[in-house]
Amino acid sequence: MPANRLVTLLSDFGLSDIYVGVMKGVITQINPTLTVIDLSHEIPPQNIAAGRFCLMSAYPYFPNGTVHIAVVDPGVGGNRRAVAIAFADAFLVCPDNGLFSGILCHTPVVAAIALTNREYWRTPTPSTTFHGRDIFASVGAHLASGVPFAELGQKIDPQTLVQLPIPECTFTDTGIIGCIQYVDRFGNLITNVPAHLVDGKNWFVKAAGLSIPGNKTYSDTADGSAIALVGSHGWVEIAVSNGNAQSQLQIKCGDAVQIGLH
Amino acid sequence: MPANRLVTLLSDFGLSDIYVGVMKGVITQINPTLTVIDLSHEIPPQNIAAGRFCLMSAYPYFPNGTVHIAVVDPGVGGNRRAVAIAFADAFLVCPDNGLFSGILCHTPVVAAIALTNREYWRTPTPSTTFHGRDIFASVGAHLASGVPFAELGQKIDPQTLVQLPIPECTFTDTGIIGCIQYVDRFGNLITNVPAHLVDGKNWFVKAAGLSIPGNKTYSDTADGSAIALVGSHGWVEIAVSNGNAQSQLQIKCGDAVQIGLH
Amino acid sequence: MPANRLVTLLSDFGLSDIYVGVMKGVITQINPTLTVIDLSHEIPPQNIAAGRFCLMSAYPYFPNGTVHIAVVDPGVGGNRRAVAIAFADAFLVCPDNGLFSGILCHTPVVAAIALTNREYWRTPTPSTTFHGRDIFASVGAHLASGVPFAELGQKIDPQTLVQLPIPECTFTDTGIIGCIQYVDRFGNLITNVPAHLVDGKNWFVKAAGLSIPGNKTYSDTADGSAIALVGSHGWVEIAVSNGNAQSQLQIKCGDAVQIGLH
Repeated sequence: MPANRLVTLLSDFGLSDIYVGVMKGVITQINPTLTVIDLSHEIPPQNIAAGRFCLMSAYPYFPNGTVHIAVVDPGVGGNRRAVAIAFADAFLVCPDNGLFSGILCHTPVVAAIALTNREYWRTPTPSTTFHGRDIFASVGAHLASGVPFAELGQKIDPQTLVQLPIPECTFTDTGIIGCIQYVDRFGNLITNVPAHLVDGKNWFVKAAGLSIPGNKTYSDTADGSAIALVGSHGWVEIAVSNGNAQSQLQIKCGDAVQIGLH
Repeated sequence: MPANRLVTLLSDFGLSDIYVGVMKGVITQINPTLTVIDLSHEIPPQNIAAGRFCLMSAYPYFPNGTVHIAVVDPGVGGNRRAVAIAFADAFLVCPDNGLFSGILCHTPVVAAIALTNREYWRTPTPSTTFHGRDIFASVGAHLASGVPFAELGQKIDPQTLVQLPIPECTFTDTGIIGCIQYVDRFGNLITNVPAHLVDGKNWFVKAAGLSIPGNKTYSDTADGSAIALVGSHGWVEIAVSNGNAQSQLQIKCGDAVQIGLH
Repeated sequence: MPANRLVTLLSDFGLSDIYVGVMKGVITQINPTLTVIDLSHEIPPQNIAAGRFCLMSAYPYFPNGTVHIAVVDPGVGGNRRAVAIAFADAFLVCPDNGLFSGILCHTPVVAAIALTNREYWRTPTPSTTFHGRDIFASVGAHLASGVPFAELGQKIDPQTLVQLPIPECTFTDTGIIGCIQYVDRFGNLITNVPAHLVDGKNWFVKAAGLSIPGNKTYSDTADGSAIALVGSHGWVEIAVSNGNAQSQLQIKCGDAVQIGLH
């Protein structure tokens, strides 16, 4: 495999502390020529589902061979495994808690390893509370620097990885019942209904007592009106033109939504 | 033109989602050797005036040939043009909504292009809601990688670019009437009165029922007192020494301020 | 000394304005090949103690020769000195206000310089309010690019640097009295009691009317329960498993805590 690949970081560490900076320091100590890109560090604390959504959504936009390091890790220091996962065209280094499950929507797992080879940890006696620094950043930097995947530890059956699948839609006579799987900084409500279920159809969303027509883009409706569209991540999304759908419609992550088709 | 210039990013995407990370992924897919610097991604959602101020203020501190990509884009997916603008010493890739207008305070436009050449988009069928990813990041990365400016699309008359000029001051017998054009994270209130109008003069600011003397620096006054000075951006600015002027004086963006000269 | 070292940035500038981006622009104007890593820019405004803690904590995780630029600078434009400090294996460029003092917990000062050589400033007439841009970023970039330390200005006696030591613990018949020196984004309460004072002992923390047993890791206790442990920075820390200790226990930075040993 080519060395000096790109590394990305995703975590719930926030940017107010130095946790992210320290992970980058560890990476630089191992290989100062790696390029490091932040996906996001503002995943809500310990929210694996939000991390899963973000990894799934960002994955397709990075070069082949990218090493994604993701640390949303409520079980740090406990029994959960630390793993590296090889997909068809990139790698993920993360705790074994389902963070990877979203990527499965578009990309199959090729192989998985439990990170048992302490040679590639930052220290053989890692902190019990910051594996991001002592295991994940270190292993990710070595992998991106050319250490073979199989060297990182013990091969494991990908079927044994902890799964946290994206919630599935259910189908009714008149449409689809889904839910909000993510809310972004603009207050856009992203559902679990994929684009292909509405493409080429007349559709609308029933939510918050409203029937919201499926449109093409934010500017297809008046400012302040609710609009439903296929968002840039490829899911049906509820937005408010030049406004915040979450606060205006009082809908939150996990809430059910109904898509009408006709 | 030299290839492998620097790219900067400015947006209202925030850092809690993966929108910015995805733009960097797209840039890296096109050219992994480009250096990318964030100006800010915390422009208040859809606030073109704040983006205009930030671009104007940051522009002089970057090397010649820098490609600035700016996406504050309430009209995404609608009729507004996507453009690239060549200034004397750098480039801007952005929606045609006035974002560039602040830079005109110190640097003239040399040429402008409508980004109609889909060869340099990430995809010929871009999302209707995320041109930052599908058009601006992609075109900016190609431009910074040596694609000639004229290749990006159709030449347009710079006079036809949407203008959103910095508000102008008015002059009275005793001074200047201006307004607050930006409030920073410290609560410093930055006016639209440029330094050269007060340089070498005795001056004070009338605001919030106070007469605030023009001083040199934060430490020229007692903690908690209001102070007026020429800030680092080159504009008259109202601050509170070791405090927050916005909350203490209850002045907000857009509010009028009066400068007395004597 | 080798040129093209790594530069880190720490400040209280936040990420909503362009101050940090501008510092990176200045660095890039001087040397576009430097790698720049953010430690944090969300130090609470003018909170030197928080900056001191973050610098101390991040320092060990960066390569030899790293140039750390730190700007928490309530005295900007006043009489405080601008300094560069050489430690055994890295450099710090900062205002002389005690920011460096935490690093002394693990690393001695080798030499110090007052930044009086204007040749390495961005401009001989710097802004009175933004030395981060006009002095610290510029000097740091030159130092990281190979300019000899002694060239930056006038040698000063390290003993004359403004000290702001980490608060010390006091010892009683039954244990240790310390205080909270930092609260992180998870609400973890980090004390000034170093690991070696509790290692290998049975210990507990008395705080907020509770007696909190010293445990090994977050997952050693039930969700929502308070736990005391040695955190990843090497200090005794109070946390709430999958919760926020600061809000749940109503303890804040500076509050006293008692460690019982038996």
